[in-house]
Amino acid sequence: MVVGEMAHERDVIIIGGGPGGYHAAIRASQLGKKVTLIEKEDLGGVCLNKGCIPSKVLTQQASRWKQIERAADMGFIVESLSLNNEKKNAYRARIISELRKGVENLCKANKVEIIKGTAFFLSENRVGVEHGERYDIFQFQQAIIATGSTPERWQGISFDGNRILDKWSISFLPTIPEHLVIHGSDVISLEMAMAYKTLGAEVTIIPNRESLEFGFDSSIDREIKRIFKKEKITIIKESYFLNALPLENGVQVIYFSNGLEKSLDCSHLFISTPNKPNTEALGLERLGVKMENDGCIWVDSKCRTSITGIFAIGDATEGHGLAVKAIKQGKVAAEVICGLPSEVDLRFLPQVVHTIPPIATVGLTEEAALQEGYVVRTSQLPLSSNGFAALSGKKDGFMKIISEQSTDVILGIHFIGEGAVELISSGTLLLEMAAREEDLTFSLQPHPSLNEALLEAGEQLKEMAIHLAPKNHHEKVKQ
Amino acid sequence: MVVGEMAHERDVIIIGGGPGGYHAAIRASQLGKKVTLIEKEDLGGVCLNKGCIPSKVLTQQASRWKQIERAADMGFIVESLSLNNEKKNAYRARIISELRKGVENLCKANKVEIIKGTAFFLSENRVGVEHGERYDIFQFQQAIIATGSTPERWQGISFDGNRILDKWSISFLPTIPEHLVIHGSDVISLEMAMAYKTLGAEVTIIPNRESLEFGFDSSIDREIKRIFKKEKITIIKESYFLNALPLENGVQVIYFSNGLEKSLDCSHLFISTPNKPNTEALGLERLGVKMENDGCIWVDSKCRTSITGIFAIGDATEGHGLAVKAIKQGKVAAEVICGLPSEVDLRFLPQVVHTIPPIATVGLTEEAALQEGYVVRTSQLPLSSNGFAALSGKKDGFMKIISEQSTDVILGIHFIGEGAVELISSGTLLLEMAAREEDLTFSLQPHPSLNEALLEAGEQLKEMAIHLAPKNHHEKVKQ
Repeated sequence: MVVGEMAHERDVIIIGGGPGGYHAAIRASQLGKKVTLIEKEDLGGVCLNKGCIPSKVLTQQASRWKQIERAADMGFIVESLSLNNEKKNAYRARIISELRKGVENLCKANKVEIIKGTAFFLSENRVGVEHGERYDIFQFQQAIIATGSTPERWQGISFDGNRILDKWSISFLPTIPEHLVIHGSDVISLEMAMAYKTLGAEVTIIPNRESLEFGFDSSIDREIKRIFKKEKITIIKESYFLNALPLENGVQVIYFSNGLEKSLDCSHLFISTPNKPNTEALGLERLGVKMENDGCIWVDSKCRTSITGIFAIGDATEGHGLAVKAIKQGKVAAEVICGLPSEVDLRFLPQVVHTIPPIATVGLTEEAALQEGYVVRTSQLPLSSNGFAALSGKKDGFMKIISEQSTDVILGIHFIGEGAVELISSGTLLLEMAAREEDLTFSLQPHPSLNEALLEAGEQLKEMAIHLAPKNHHEKVKQ
Repeated sequence: MVVGEMAHERDVIIIGGGPGGYHAAIRASQLGKKVTLIEKEDLGGVCLNKGCIPSKVLTQQASRWKQIERAADMGFIVESLSLNNEKKNAYRARIISELRKGVENLCKANKVEIIKGTAFFLSENRVGVEHGERYDIFQFQQAIIATGSTPERWQGISFDGNRILDKWSISFLPTIPEHLVIHGSDVISLEMAMAYKTLGAEVTIIPNRESLEFGFDSSIDREIKRIFKKEKITIIKESYFLNALPLENGVQVIYFSNGLEKSLDCSHLFISTPNKPNTEALGLERLGVKMENDGCIWVDSKCRTSITGIFAIGDATEGHGLAVKAIKQGKVAAEVICGLPSEVDLRFLPQVVHTIPPIATVGLTEEAALQEGYVVRTSQLPLSSNGFAALSGKKDGFMKIISEQSTDVILGIHFIGEGAVELISSGTLLLEMAAREEDLTFSLQPHPSLNEALLEAGEQLKEMAIHLAPKNHHEKVKQ
């Protein structure tokens, strides 16, 4: 095969059709490029087909279930509530299929060429693509690597997707487990614990750190523990996961706790292993692409790798393995390719957890702000002080704001409670626009609304919230 | 009685304990004033006891009911769902009572003196207060009039609170009406139509204007009509309400339509009459307080009336009869009294409607922007293009943004759809901070989330939304 003769010419080649990849493809196409998107499995990638979307379907189902369970509070009588597993699973399958078709149609409408195949670099401007019996070579002006990541497989653990589950299989259990043990303390661990517990499972968490922290502002970490305790989700503290052995109808989990090796039999085990970037089979060594120590591709703020014309985005690069990051990087890479002055700035990346109630945070935690040398002011407004939270029967949680004392600039916003996800965008915008406390406290918020809790958390930075008693009169929210 | 001898001295007297009044009282107290709050009925005022809170309890109950009704979509089986009126009403009573106690406790904790009585001005620095057998005179340094408003009573209509209802009684129906006719097209009319329809009533609306408009951006008005039609809420177009006659077990509504007088028998009639300010029995003429034509008290942006030392806020003054306005004015009046440079600026006042789905808007409508001479850019992003809306089964509605073409400054944000209420705060903050399109499109939004619809509506101003097919490929959302 004479490569020179065979190479198909393209403007932009994107390897990987997850959220980062398809956002990049559509944006580049919007800006006038001829784009080819190479995906070896399904468009939408892990996020749509195995990760974010299926897990969010499950958390939404759990959230709906909870609403029904609590119906009596509001005067409704539900004679019998039960779960039809077949229909529950069909709902998930339908949503995934609809969203995937949506992405396919969008790519088509934007004239993005889709090739189902496996791509690897032949040189700095050529990739080979194996698809079925065929092998093609594409010459590109620019390429974007958007190959994502894969959960690590631990030696000796048989992730069978049936009893022992990873991030990709945990949302697809055909029935609600009798007893789910979760080894992990990340977002997906918290979401799956709450969702399956709500839907009827017994849930036990073996965190993966010595002291149990979930990585949020410590006030949020404490509130999670309080709510999990209330929901009877067991957290085994000071424990180290050791091993998992298949049983006939379940799993034996071996762990170390208080100086002793212990075991726990359960029906299902979910291990939230860290992800590793999918950068191994791309021929990157051949090109001398600069890598990070952990197998991630080094990129600058314009998503450029060390090789001119080759970009990388999403989980294949350093940083939070969040779709929002991949999406932003995808759009920036496309825009940079098309000559725009775009840059990625992840300082104000929101993090969201779909527990019940949800969590959403953006900016610095109090701990991080102090560590960075800020002299801070903080406020914490319990949702129990909010009229709308009261009338909708959702008073768990609070809003916490951190600002810099000398400038009043808002540094971080941390919510746990109803409405947190939608309200976090206010926080993101405040931080992005370098807002000061008065930008928030000046704003008009509908009454009654959860939004008022955000306003009052802002006022409380100067101890001026209306719905919190003055300090000498009330026990401060426990820190 | 020698007035001079009897007068009790106070710093600040506030007449009316609704949201405006109690926010003013607590804020003035936070800033060091001795405050006396005079309320003739219950603390919390109409908003807490008769208006916003009871109506929001009902809309939340309706919203929960809908969630349960739709449970089958997600694979849940609810054998029988029914409504226990006694418990439904007890829920409302409990919430109102809890919130009222909350306000009472906050006033106490802030050392606000509460007097249950009726106040009227004796002079520019004295009020008389009748409470029970007692009559007291208070001398004040500043007074704030926060007496609110009352729904108009129309001659010949017997608002009995049983079959013929006003804004204050509509949320308190002991059972779900068989057939509720609503004469009105304001926020409360829309909320009650949707809530009672959802909970099982037949609902017919006789709007109170010739051409049916709800006063929102015309795109929102159209979407409301579409959704109401889908929900089988009947709107009688081109109709004029004429009269209502009590029947033995209902009401006969007489109206004019298509050149003919017609009648409609129903079980209940709600007439959303306009409110008139409660400014008549306060002795304001005596002082020569400057009034507006409609009985409202004239105030400047610091809530000062024409008489030094006397302030007025909320529904007793001109403008939207919204608690958010009263609350803002209450805080501003208190701050001005305490020497702070606060001002009321209502340009970016959010409006919220708790229909299913909810509506929330802030800033200029497209029509208003054009009328003000702006050359605008607009975008409209249907929620059906949003992954989170799809997976939570709530795809009705859209987000519309209006910006100024020459400057990219955002002028108005209009949502109808799930999450609208919480997301509107992003809109409010964007407008308040004079954000340009790029301030929105630069922001990072969690994935998947409803928040992404806001981001994409921002991108769509330049036709760059990822999840909308390019214009030549899709039928534009019908305008």
